[in-house]
Amino acid sequence: MAKISVDLPDIENLLSLNARVQQHPNVVPTKTTKIKKAHWKRNEDNKCSTCLNLENNFDDIKPTTLSERGALREAIRCLKCADAPCQKSCPTQIDIKSFITSIANKNYYGAAKAILSDNPLGLTCGMVCPTSDLCVGGCNLQATEEGPINIGGLQQFCVEVFSKMNIKQMRDPKVVAPKNADAGIVLFGAGPASLSCATFLGRLGYNNITIYEKQDILGGLSSTEIPQYRLPATAVKFELQLVQDLGVKIETGRQLSIKDLTITKLLNDGTKAIFVGIGLPTPKTSPVFKGLTPENGYYTSKSFLPEVAKVKTNGLCVCKTSTTVIIPQLFGKVIVLGAGDTAFDCATSALRCGAKKVFVVFRKGFTNIRAVPEEMEVAVKEKCELIGFLSPHKVNLNEKGKITSITFKRTEQDENGHWIEDEDQLTTLKADFIISAFGCGLEDRDVIEALSPLELDQKNVPLIDFNTMLTSHPQVWCGGDVAGIAETTVESVNDGKIAAWYIHCSLQGLSFDSPPKLPLFYTEIDNVDLSVEVCGVKFKNPFGLASAPPATSTAMIRRAFEQGWAFAVTKTFSLDKDVVTNVSPRIVRGTTHGPLFGPQQSSFLNIELISEKCADYWCQSITELKQDFPDHILIASIMCSFNEDDWVELAQKAERAGADMLECNLSCPHGMGESGMGLACGQKPELVKGISKWVKNAVKIPVFIKLTPNITEIVEIAKAAYEGGADGVAAINTVSGLMGLKGDGTPWPAVGTDKRTTYGGVSGNVIRPIALRDISAIARALPDFPILGIGGIDSAETAYQFLQCGASVLQVGSAIQNQDFTLIQDYCSGLRALLYLDDKLQGWDGQSPPTFKHQLGKPVKSVYGKDGKKLPHFGRYREEREKAIGKRTLVSLISQNEQLNSIEIPSAEVPKVKDVIGKALVKIGPYKKLDNTKQVVAVIDDVRWQYVT
Amino acid sequence: MAKISVDLPDIENLLSLNARVQQHPNVVPTKTTKIKKAHWKRNEDNKCSTCLNLENNFDDIKPTTLSERGALREAIRCLKCADAPCQKSCPTQIDIKSFITSIANKNYYGAAKAILSDNPLGLTCGMVCPTSDLCVGGCNLQATEEGPINIGGLQQFCVEVFSKMNIKQMRDPKVVAPKNADAGIVLFGAGPASLSCATFLGRLGYNNITIYEKQDILGGLSSTEIPQYRLPATAVKFELQLVQDLGVKIETGRQLSIKDLTITKLLNDGTKAIFVGIGLPTPKTSPVFKGLTPENGYYTSKSFLPEVAKVKTNGLCVCKTSTTVIIPQLFGKVIVLGAGDTAFDCATSALRCGAKKVFVVFRKGFTNIRAVPEEMEVAVKEKCELIGFLSPHKVNLNEKGKITSITFKRTEQDENGHWIEDEDQLTTLKADFIISAFGCGLEDRDVIEALSPLELDQKNVPLIDFNTMLTSHPQVWCGGDVAGIAETTVESVNDGKIAAWYIHCSLQGLSFDSPPKLPLFYTEIDNVDLSVEVCGVKFKNPFGLASAPPATSTAMIRRAFEQGWAFAVTKTFSLDKDVVTNVSPRIVRGTTHGPLFGPQQSSFLNIELISEKCADYWCQSITELKQDFPDHILIASIMCSFNEDDWVELAQKAERAGADMLECNLSCPHGMGESGMGLACGQKPELVKGISKWVKNAVKIPVFIKLTPNITEIVEIAKAAYEGGADGVAAINTVSGLMGLKGDGTPWPAVGTDKRTTYGGVSGNVIRPIALRDISAIARALPDFPILGIGGIDSAETAYQFLQCGASVLQVGSAIQNQDFTLIQDYCSGLRALLYLDDKLQGWDGQSPPTFKHQLGKPVKSVYGKDGKKLPHFGRYREEREKAIGKRTLVSLISQNEQLNSIEIPSAEVPKVKDVIGKALVKIGPYKKLDNTKQVVAVIDDVRWQYVT
Repeated sequence: MAKISVDLPDIENLLSLNARVQQHPNVVPTKTTKIKKAHWKRNEDNKCSTCLNLENNFDDIKPTTLSERGALREAIRCLKCADAPCQKSCPTQIDIKSFITSIANKNYYGAAKAILSDNPLGLTCGMVCPTSDLCVGGCNLQATEEGPINIGGLQQFCVEVFSKMNIKQMRDPKVVAPKNADAGIVLFGAGPASLSCATFLGRLGYNNITIYEKQDILGGLSSTEIPQYRLPATAVKFELQLVQDLGVKIETGRQLSIKDLTITKLLNDGTKAIFVGIGLPTPKTSPVFKGLTPENGYYTSKSFLPEVAKVKTNGLCVCKTSTTVIIPQLFGKVIVLGAGDTAFDCATSALRCGAKKVFVVFRKGFTNIRAVPEEMEVAVKEKCELIGFLSPHKVNLNEKGKITSITFKRTEQDENGHWIEDEDQLTTLKADFIISAFGCGLEDRDVIEALSPLELDQKNVPLIDFNTMLTSHPQVWCGGDVAGIAETTVESVNDGKIAAWYIHCSLQGLSFDSPPKLPLFYTEIDNVDLSVEVCGVKFKNPFGLASAPPATSTAMIRRAFEQGWAFAVTKTFSLDKDVVTNVSPRIVRGTTHGPLFGPQQSSFLNIELISEKCADYWCQSITELKQDFPDHILIASIMCSFNEDDWVELAQKAERAGADMLECNLSCPHGMGESGMGLACGQKPELVKGISKWVKNAVKIPVFIKLTPNITEIVEIAKAAYEGGADGVAAINTVSGLMGLKGDGTPWPAVGTDKRTTYGGVSGNVIRPIALRDISAIARALPDFPILGIGGIDSAETAYQFLQCGASVLQVGSAIQNQDFTLIQDYCSGLRALLYLDDKLQGWDGQSPPTFKHQLGKPVKSVYGKDGKKLPHFGRYREEREKAIGKRTLVSLISQNEQLNSIEIPSAEVPKVKDVIGKALVKIGPYKKLDNTKQVVAVIDDVRWQYVT
Repeated sequence: MAKISVDLPDIENLLSLNARVQQHPNVVPTKTTKIKKAHWKRNEDNKCSTCLNLENNFDDIKPTTLSERGALREAIRCLKCADAPCQKSCPTQIDIKSFITSIANKNYYGAAKAILSDNPLGLTCGMVCPTSDLCVGGCNLQATEEGPINIGGLQQFCVEVFSKMNIKQMRDPKVVAPKNADAGIVLFGAGPASLSCATFLGRLGYNNITIYEKQDILGGLSSTEIPQYRLPATAVKFELQLVQDLGVKIETGRQLSIKDLTITKLLNDGTKAIFVGIGLPTPKTSPVFKGLTPENGYYTSKSFLPEVAKVKTNGLCVCKTSTTVIIPQLFGKVIVLGAGDTAFDCATSALRCGAKKVFVVFRKGFTNIRAVPEEMEVAVKEKCELIGFLSPHKVNLNEKGKITSITFKRTEQDENGHWIEDEDQLTTLKADFIISAFGCGLEDRDVIEALSPLELDQKNVPLIDFNTMLTSHPQVWCGGDVAGIAETTVESVNDGKIAAWYIHCSLQGLSFDSPPKLPLFYTEIDNVDLSVEVCGVKFKNPFGLASAPPATSTAMIRRAFEQGWAFAVTKTFSLDKDVVTNVSPRIVRGTTHGPLFGPQQSSFLNIELISEKCADYWCQSITELKQDFPDHILIASIMCSFNEDDWVELAQKAERAGADMLECNLSCPHGMGESGMGLACGQKPELVKGISKWVKNAVKIPVFIKLTPNITEIVEIAKAAYEGGADGVAAINTVSGLMGLKGDGTPWPAVGTDKRTTYGGVSGNVIRPIALRDISAIARALPDFPILGIGGIDSAETAYQFLQCGASVLQVGSAIQNQDFTLIQDYCSGLRALLYLDDKLQGWDGQSPPTFKHQLGKPVKSVYGKDGKKLPHFGRYREEREKAIGKRTLVSLISQNEQLNSIEIPSAEVPKVKDVIGKALVKIGPYKKLDNTKQVVAVIDDVRWQYVT
């Protein structure tokens, strides 16, 4: 008879891939592996030097793009440095650690709000900023093996998710309308600098803002020069909409010109403030190229990139006429001259226009390339050749006037570091096309004259005070390329922001020294009401400090209130006779998270007792804090042994001090129990009932009992509290545990010279499953009995789960230990977003949009081979895939650009916090109510795994 | 009166850096940020094109080097792919996922053992392998934003830690001595190929192995060409020692030469097998350089690199005479010719010899560089210039015969892809030195003749069967560079390994088709006995399967036994009347680990009931398994309701089937309780006592009670089991919990169309603090009452903690769910290492060596500025640091090389498992025994944080 404990042959076959413990070294000849490894190769084959066919391929090639999974993984690495150098290195000073915190907590709205508050073009900048020279350049994680945080990628990710929510910007209703709210303000050029300036002016309350743009395409360089694969039209369009949401008008076909609008004319016509953000329109070039045109095969970056950008501008054109896009048709060898970011944009664009081979040729060496490494690497990855130490000498044309080659002089650095060009050493490179990318200037006399009466410098650009962006005229500001300080989009955006503030000062008659008070980014989500009432006590939001180390002193509670926490439970205090002295060390990082450090620890263990401070300290503080923060709620956490007089005395003392509520701590799992307190009282229903009665009878304010989870059935204790007359319970306290031992058997924390320990209280995410179970069980058993939820709340997302399981307000401890009090901002914006979006967006999970198929954060399509099977992403299959994807047409891309933000959010009542409390309870119940006839199976996809029912 | 709830002014000041919620956008002019960001800059300034002074700086510059923290973080990313392409792409076929598993589990010995088993030069290869073209090239994580695993760095890390343990290699005592064990075997060249071949022959049991090396420096290219900063002498010396540990003799100053040893002579003298692994000694060059020598300023890689390598070979020289090292003294401009790895080694070495600027010049383009990207990047980072499309034409000397410049022809690719050199386009680059790196050959007639009678090819190298590395002579094998298939160290190592197996076949008269059975790497650690006896039942090691999903079927238990698990507890079975049907989905990933996926989940939740299979299935299987695996232990997990007849019937049935022990499941936290089983029985001491009695009286085999942690005091239940006569307890079962809800309030897992859930059992690391607490509490209360430990055991490190807390054997569930059954190998080698090293290595924690100060995994020194303060690692301080570290002397480096592996492990009795059980209990006790007079304070270091008492 066959053995039943042996796998059937067909399963054996399936299992053949299973890992096995190795019994002997593997013996595979070198020759064999050389062949096999090619089959499995996942990365680029560096032996292949031919360019991929990239013609018409305008897919995202940013190395920074992140999927949601990748973004979360990256965000949790951030250390949230107090003195964050990333923020100091960002031209717009975005609060980077704050937005990364929000991403880590899946609060993408909160993250986008933080970004757009400081940088109205936050999406564009997330995509195009040369971050290695900005925020990322300052990241302290540079010193780790994993390297600095991909800040640009995170920025792009969260603003992109927000853009999919399709929510309008609005003026913060709390902003007081300024004087001269209807004063005429004019901005020239619809590029980053003006868009930023107009946004801040709009947020400040100005109603009569007009941007004049000479082209019929909006967005400035973002639209007309930066290629689609680095900055898609969708992104530009999204940000243009945000500006217009504020009532900013944009007129196209109008320009700063003596033939149209001039500074003088506008001022004479009553315009109160003017911002000039027109960019630098004229390409610099070299006499070598004199007279050459695209007909000959010669482009400048200024004549080439806008032609290529037509694949995106089509969607951004206000004219909406043409749908047929023709981009330059290149072929053969293309030589790009220059070594700045624009040169590399020209190089990669040339490949997409049909070039077979691109050479980037520059005057100095490799080590002098001005472009940031991340820009250059994209071109190198696409197999562009880089050639240094050559300066153009002569262009060679054939009889038809077409370029055939270009002759260069060799350049060299002399002893003193000066660059010299050697006319005797000539080198000729074949070329079918030349694109020069040598930067730009302002040379158009028409524009220069229209700037009058502004004082100009020798380069014909306005003289500017770089602290205020004010020109020589007190009503005219300037920013962006034409102002001469900004070298990047983000710096142009900042110029606009600085100018906006000083335009405001000027219009309001404020001193330029006034502390800047620009308004933050604001939407309807920020209008969502988070207040909730428990036992007649009103909480402005449901978040407060748990009775835990972050509430060790009342100065800490003060700081928490200042940051926005709605309430605080004091660290537990006692009568003087019960005051304790704590041991040290007493709070340790958990071991449950493995070797991951930084502010995302999944657990802590503490052996801290109650407060070392006396009741008088706490009571006087409560009085002070209630005076200073009348809208904030103070809950006094108290503990006595099982003695009525003690409980009555302490409870009344706290009530007299002004506490809004009491929390009786019957649950501290360590130490106090040995003195007949804490847990010693909380594990016996009759004691809990007794204490509840005593305290409830002694005071008028609501009384809550804090419950321990170290118990067979917490519901019994909650019922005892209920029966004793308590107004509700707080659940849960920490879980009793021993965190771990060192290799030599020493426990940790180890106290004193003999390195002893005791069981402590485990807190953090790891106890959240216990807390959700206990809270939902109590809520199911005692439907209208309020619960103060505690136990691993570390985000709005998890807070929402606690509410849905029946908690009314929420206490936070470990999450603050992990980071700082500013978390409240993230929790509030996150919860507002969850309430606002509740069930509205099809396929979303909270703030997470549906996951698309991706690799390296970029969408991938399934491609089928000749045998009809899906092609894998490695080895020769990879090449086959790439060939199959092959030549694109531009049609699909364009239609994609046009169907932006098409999701309409249904207008529906936004629920209040009270509406979601206990919402999930109907789905939770006994095992026997589960349907064991429905089974799910796993279906394996070639790029991701997916469950289907 | 001052408020007591306000921070004192001095604290306010300290707190000024604290994060605050942002109320307004930040307004900082672009100009200001441009200055500030330079202050904070952490990464390279790409505007700086001058080389750092690297003269005499031979510090590690590998981009892959990892600290322990970095290694752990990297290791936990690995997916442990079943069909792992990394292993298939490794020439020596190292079981990569296995060694990365061991690193993730802090079992560095286990990791090193896996590596050295397949690759005796595992440390060298971890440092120098071009991994992007090997293992890393196949990594599936290439498709993620975080990129592929740094396999080379992990390999280096763990073997380096092992090398610090200072433990000798030995022959596995289980290897049967071969026939002709004393047959003479000769290997030529003490490089990677021969060292590998000799190692495997030594492991196989051959006693008379001699390596002849012509130089007085051992290690081959590893010593004489690869620079110290890529492969330090310590690494080479460590591996040379491992070979010699096996009794392999090495004679220097002896060579394959008609003047010394020839193939014919050796064969005539009775040598039974010869391996030729001499490398390729003659540099290829170009007629352009004819007659030039170092006197002129001309080197080949073969004349340059060995001179530079003297900084390391000094420590490897058998002669031990010289201590003064003189390396080539370069200056000015150095031109390196070539584009392979060696060219880049020459370039970075030249900087260390004093070159001010290095140009790497090559014939083809940038996209044709043969070196792997990681090699090239190091040179680019050190500001070497790369210049393509030039081919040497003429060297120009001054009147003193010194090189002044070199004239190149331009090269170009024609339409057909052929490379042409254009003699009309000449370019001259200034140079003080030229180093050519064009590869090597075998041209020495003396050597060629000594190879007789081997058949040679047109390049004068032996004709070889690449499947066996056999030459045309049946007793002569060949490997490494001279064999013509290996292009890397690791391929040379593999040549040696392949040859070793076929030499063995040949000496044993085995067919070349025999399945290869080379022995694994072996040390004294592998001799440590892991067996332990519980209630008279002997376990070969303390690790077994818990009664959990990995024991769902007996075929699974069979597979587990085959991999080495000592015991298994069956999935709980019942009488037929109680058989269940499970719902689906029923096991979900925990939410406690945040957005980290892959096989390191910190928790799972299941709502799986007991087995759906009947008692007959389980009992027949037990009988079969005991027949096939008499040395493995089978524990039957059984469950009934509170009914004596049922328990007696089922217990006796299991005993009759041959179960070694019974585990009565009184603790399943979900579902079963509703039927009056599981937890319903386990939370009441009187029921536990009763069941213990019934079952104990019914059978002769040991009876254990599996306890629930969902209880107020588990010790009371353990006492009840003890009083009822049970032989011990199993602790703990899962913790009751609700894992979480989706954004819309749907619980997960959601069963059926109405998406309901019930409370499930939480398992994994997150419950380990509870398990350690419960087990130690039971062990303290009932000292000689055996405990089967369960609850988050996921490594030898954590297993050791369970033993020290009082568990006798250990059950694993979630960790297997996370990965697969091969974990047992890691757990056993890890536990052996912990027992072997127990308390022996000063400052170590388990297998973790003391942490050194590092950045990017590389040691850093504190450097003090003029003001006496430590210099930070950013902005201008960074430059100051680099200047201050400045010019090195070689003396310290050399002395460092010589004091290798100086730690001596004290010889002491290795403890048995039983000796460590309960070892930590004396340190665990009530809070009141803790000393609250000793306080610890945190001291902040500039590179790491450190606690001091």
